[in-house]
Amino acid sequence: MTELAPFRVSNGGKMLWENPCARNNVANVLFLESPAGVGFSHSNTSSNYIIGDTKTAADSFTFLVNWLERFPEYKTRDFFITGENYAGRYVPRLAQLILHNNKITNQTVINLKGATIGNGEYDIETQNRGTYDYYWTHALISDEIHQGIVSNCNFSSADPPSDACQTYKSQAHSDIGHIDSNNIYAPLYEYDPCSDNYVYPYLNTPAVQKSLHANTTGIPGPWKNYKYICYDVFGYIGHNWDDEIDTVLPVIKEHPSGGISVWLYNGDIDSVCSVTTTRYALNKLRLSAKTPWHAWYTQGEVGGYTVEYENLTFVTVRGAGHLVPSYQPARALTLFSSFLVGKLPPSN
Amino acid sequence: MTELAPFRVSNGGKMLWENPCARNNVANVLFLESPAGVGFSHSNTSSNYIIGDTKTAADSFTFLVNWLERFPEYKTRDFFITGENYAGRYVPRLAQLILHNNKITNQTVINLKGATIGNGEYDIETQNRGTYDYYWTHALISDEIHQGIVSNCNFSSADPPSDACQTYKSQAHSDIGHIDSNNIYAPLYEYDPCSDNYVYPYLNTPAVQKSLHANTTGIPGPWKNYKYICYDVFGYIGHNWDDEIDTVLPVIKEHPSGGISVWLYNGDIDSVCSVTTTRYALNKLRLSAKTPWHAWYTQGEVGGYTVEYENLTFVTVRGAGHLVPSYQPARALTLFSSFLVGKLPPSN
Repeated sequence: MTELAPFRVSNGGKMLWENPCARNNVANVLFLESPAGVGFSHSNTSSNYIIGDTKTAADSFTFLVNWLERFPEYKTRDFFITGENYAGRYVPRLAQLILHNNKITNQTVINLKGATIGNGEYDIETQNRGTYDYYWTHALISDEIHQGIVSNCNFSSADPPSDACQTYKSQAHSDIGHIDSNNIYAPLYEYDPCSDNYVYPYLNTPAVQKSLHANTTGIPGPWKNYKYICYDVFGYIGHNWDDEIDTVLPVIKEHPSGGISVWLYNGDIDSVCSVTTTRYALNKLRLSAKTPWHAWYTQGEVGGYTVEYENLTFVTVRGAGHLVPSYQPARALTLFSSFLVGKLPPSN
Repeated sequence: MTELAPFRVSNGGKMLWENPCARNNVANVLFLESPAGVGFSHSNTSSNYIIGDTKTAADSFTFLVNWLERFPEYKTRDFFITGENYAGRYVPRLAQLILHNNKITNQTVINLKGATIGNGEYDIETQNRGTYDYYWTHALISDEIHQGIVSNCNFSSADPPSDACQTYKSQAHSDIGHIDSNNIYAPLYEYDPCSDNYVYPYLNTPAVQKSLHANTTGIPGPWKNYKYICYDVFGYIGHNWDDEIDTVLPVIKEHPSGGISVWLYNGDIDSVCSVTTTRYALNKLRLSAKTPWHAWYTQGEVGGYTVEYENLTFVTVRGAGHLVPSYQPARALTLFSSFLVGKLPPSN
């Protein structure tokens, strides 16, 4: 409700206003809260919370198949998956599972046509290296600290870093100071503070929960902002999360063989999953460009840049932070609409 | 009048409004239009327009000495020089001349205490290299075009570039599309459009010119925005401008021996004289840090980053374009005030 949904919340959590750049302007949108335990999703069986990338894909797949059984009129519609951040892992794994299942059952169980991920996390090495390079090239850290990190850190290892690496990394994070890592040029917490603050009371209003058919079993404890839930999930369930692979790039590369359209996009002023990390990841795939890098436009302004590879499209969104539709709603909608129709965003 | 002056212009060039972040809040400010021919400065002798870096320094020095003769009450005041962009050349040359003259005359003709330059041009090699690296690291151009430039261009040469270099550079500029190179994330021409548009009619109002004691000899032709005048000057006088040296860094390095304080600063979202170019230039000076790189704060937000070398201070201004006081007036004033008192901007 702070990004792409039909409504945003204002007035202390009591009122909604219509989001003119909501994605349901151009598609039916189904929101799926994952992994299990996030948002209003819940289970009375605690073992269901022992999750991981594989379990999340399986849970999502099961949900979607059952949802389509219940609403069969949507079975033949084109189906697209989207996500952000760690969904850089979820989306390719789910797409892989859908395509694999269609293949082995020899039928279109889910009519998957494409997948798009915003500011995603794909590969441990490029994520690590790209993040500190982004800090450095955006003048957030000094040459010396950057050089110390490059010389002392093993980016491709999930092992605990060396003491020297850890010291330099800590210094980097301390040097950056108190900025919004999701949007390095914004004032702290600037983006849509109303929605961000008001979603909490809104979604904890009993009448709202009832209308949403949410928490019907009356689980205690309030609904929490996804950020904190994410923290809870990773903080707690992280111990059981043993199937995170070093890189999801091979999975992304195999998608086109399933005939689906894959678009990766990045808001370019996010330092969490920066445009640099995605570019480094794409470099690893060694794709050949079909339509070379160029600017795309919306509302008379450069919306960002795009390059179309043989089987994958990369798009940047200029002046957008981590959650692209929050920071650049109009640009994000142009991008999403272009993705749906399989055409590059307008080049003038 | 679009940056740091006491007033800005509105209402179609008819009204002034007070700039709350004007530099005259903290200092007496003397505006000096240079080189000869810029703004309202003029001469009836056309040879006076045959200018260059040395001539500009000499003209400015002559003006200042005469101005202090006329207003001797200011002779003993601390004197600081500031400038932007090509003033990266002017300011060090003028400071050098002042210090040199004080030394040979063995008296304080001009009581120079410091110099500060914003988004300046200092060194042909780092300016060239840093600009294309900035484009690349800010996701404005592709890896391939950047690599083509790095492989084919001789950054340190003022000679015409090779055909391959020229082709890649042209491609880079075309790929970037129509963005404001002074502020890569801003909508086109966003910053203070009123002042920018209204200064022209305001300064061409006869009553205003009379009040300013400007154009008293009635030279034909309107006052023009400095941008166009700059273009005129460089387009025309450029042919006679034969004393531009490859680098002004040795001049900057010698300043501290004159006991003055030198601060270089950069708005970090400018691509014309980017923060990267200044960092590369500073690297060439091989200075040792006295106070390492850290964030500085104003109004509760990170204003940018700063590093204090033994004899020079570097400051970035976060989210500021080429003309720092236009884009980030409050941060620019905090920075300028700190410079005047010789203290690093607040670290919290």
